[in-house]
Amino acid sequence: MIYEDYYIFTPGPVKMSDEILEVGAKQTPYFRNCEFSDVTYACEKGLLEMVNAPEGSKVIFLTASGTAGMESVVMNLLNQDDHALVVHGGGFGGRFVDICATHQVPHYDFKVSNTNLWDIESLAPKENFTSLIVNAHETSVGHLYNLDALGAYAKKNDLLFIVDAISMLVTDPIDMSAQNIDVIIASSQKGLALPPGLTMVILAPKALEKVQEVQSLYFNFKDYLSNGERGQTPYTPAVTIMLQLQARLEQIARRGGVEQSINRAKNIAEYFRESIKALPLKAYTEFMPNAMTTLTPTDGTSAMDIVNALEEGYKVMVCPNGGAERDIIFRVSHMGDMTRAYTDVLINALYNYYGLER
Amino acid sequence: MIYEDYYIFTPGPVKMSDEILEVGAKQTPYFRNCEFSDVTYACEKGLLEMVNAPEGSKVIFLTASGTAGMESVVMNLLNQDDHALVVHGGGFGGRFVDICATHQVPHYDFKVSNTNLWDIESLAPKENFTSLIVNAHETSVGHLYNLDALGAYAKKNDLLFIVDAISMLVTDPIDMSAQNIDVIIASSQKGLALPPGLTMVILAPKALEKVQEVQSLYFNFKDYLSNGERGQTPYTPAVTIMLQLQARLEQIARRGGVEQSINRAKNIAEYFRESIKALPLKAYTEFMPNAMTTLTPTDGTSAMDIVNALEEGYKVMVCPNGGAERDIIFRVSHMGDMTRAYTDVLINALYNYYGLER
Repeated sequence: MIYEDYYIFTPGPVKMSDEILEVGAKQTPYFRNCEFSDVTYACEKGLLEMVNAPEGSKVIFLTASGTAGMESVVMNLLNQDDHALVVHGGGFGGRFVDICATHQVPHYDFKVSNTNLWDIESLAPKENFTSLIVNAHETSVGHLYNLDALGAYAKKNDLLFIVDAISMLVTDPIDMSAQNIDVIIASSQKGLALPPGLTMVILAPKALEKVQEVQSLYFNFKDYLSNGERGQTPYTPAVTIMLQLQARLEQIARRGGVEQSINRAKNIAEYFRESIKALPLKAYTEFMPNAMTTLTPTDGTSAMDIVNALEEGYKVMVCPNGGAERDIIFRVSHMGDMTRAYTDVLINALYNYYGLER
Repeated sequence: MIYEDYYIFTPGPVKMSDEILEVGAKQTPYFRNCEFSDVTYACEKGLLEMVNAPEGSKVIFLTASGTAGMESVVMNLLNQDDHALVVHGGGFGGRFVDICATHQVPHYDFKVSNTNLWDIESLAPKENFTSLIVNAHETSVGHLYNLDALGAYAKKNDLLFIVDAISMLVTDPIDMSAQNIDVIIASSQKGLALPPGLTMVILAPKALEKVQEVQSLYFNFKDYLSNGERGQTPYTPAVTIMLQLQARLEQIARRGGVEQSINRAKNIAEYFRESIKALPLKAYTEFMPNAMTTLTPTDGTSAMDIVNALEEGYKVMVCPNGGAERDIIFRVSHMGDMTRAYTDVLINALYNYYGLER
């Protein structure tokens, strides 16, 4: 087994709690029955509450990874009559651009940097858009956009507002009702801290009205919605991860609700950032989520060398970047079952790496 | 937790061994590194050996359920210039027909019954086909087709031979080289006895040559093949299930190879069928796989009543059918970590249900 005794600070997979792991060790039950429909209903209810979804919202459970959630949303909700404004501040924004291009959805490749888009009103091109698409947390660089500002802009311009919340759900605040969000895409292996393989699409009534016929069986939302009425999916669901999701939603509720989980992530992130201030590392962006800290070495060290040194010398896994950013940044996730004590392992490793006393 | 103390005889999910369940209880490791690439390579090698794939074959690992494997194969390998002969002997054959229709692939809806197609040469319409598609084990009714005869027919007519082996891999023999199979679709939660959520597509060189551009990111085989060269997938893989697959392939090898697993399933299936001969139940088809037994009550009892009685009275889960077959048949899987002792629980429950001495 690889890495089971490593300390995990990668932004997916993230550290899972023992309670969730125990569910992973159980036999997968049969699922075409009322007992499993109840699991689906419970997961739907919990997710809708977590994001304060408007009355009448629905959840689609896709057995797939997050990109399938992103792509299926574009396929089912947008078409050649649309004009989508796609926020592109990193690799995942670029993926939405690719998806729109692949499915021939007219779009504007809205390249942004050094802003969380509080100023979208002045930055966005003056075109007649029908939809706004954003990765709320652009995970490739650790940059969080301002959903209040984006939501206000979407409302003012009557845009279908599609938010990939994959890397910020459970750690950073999101509110479908207050922020005028019509679609949220979530995934199991980030803040929800489950194994990868389950993607959830939350559709508010305005999005439900837009669901169209598609040239696809596996990504046919109409089929998922009609099966969802009886708590089922058209094709075999990721049964084990659904059961883990149910347990996780109960865990979040038991711990005081999602606000408490967000506070917990915020505290951990702040503790980490405060603790390493003496080290030759600086934040890569001023708009960091609670989910993750992205760091740049200030002493000329290669970020990749630090990643490798932490792995080899301290059994600590942080996340490298590829391409041009390989030497410039590395990423530290605060998602999942994190504690100060667990985070101390990384902090102490960093101090030790630099030969400094903490 | 639902059903954890039930005896599972459903054709997916199936009973998993303790060894596999233990992997499910481990932290999911980071996967964008050489250690995980080695897991992917090992899984690919093991699967290729298991089906005796020709030199140069490749495996695509999709985070998805089996229907995604079926649909992505049609999307990536067939187009409007093709003419597919689609064997349609039940619900899953019908799904391939739907998939071809959805993706505008010309096809012949080849409805068949009461034959395992040993006589395909005389039964098939005399048209110029380019491809032959079959669900080797039509799981909806428990009917196994003759892959030798289908393969010979495919070879003689120079057809791309696509086989959905989802419900027969590991329990029933399949040989890509001997049976001229160009594509195999497999899935995690059947004979491989893993949790659902991973689908594998095995492509022989003739199929690899046919891989075309598609209007899809998530199902773009070219992307999976190029990432596969370095043991990776374009999007987050079902990491935990991949690790379980690696463990399962090692388990199969340790137990004497796939032939031994097939023999074991055959023995269990024969033992079950022999043991219930005294009961008012008959085989629904004469072409049953080792994977499953499909039974029809001969005393006028509703099959659904038997399913419910076994569940409620004996904690035994067998599989009902829906629609017109609801009262006519139920299905008993022999896939997964089955033993005679485990199967005895079902046999004894059936005797008890009928008030008969075994």
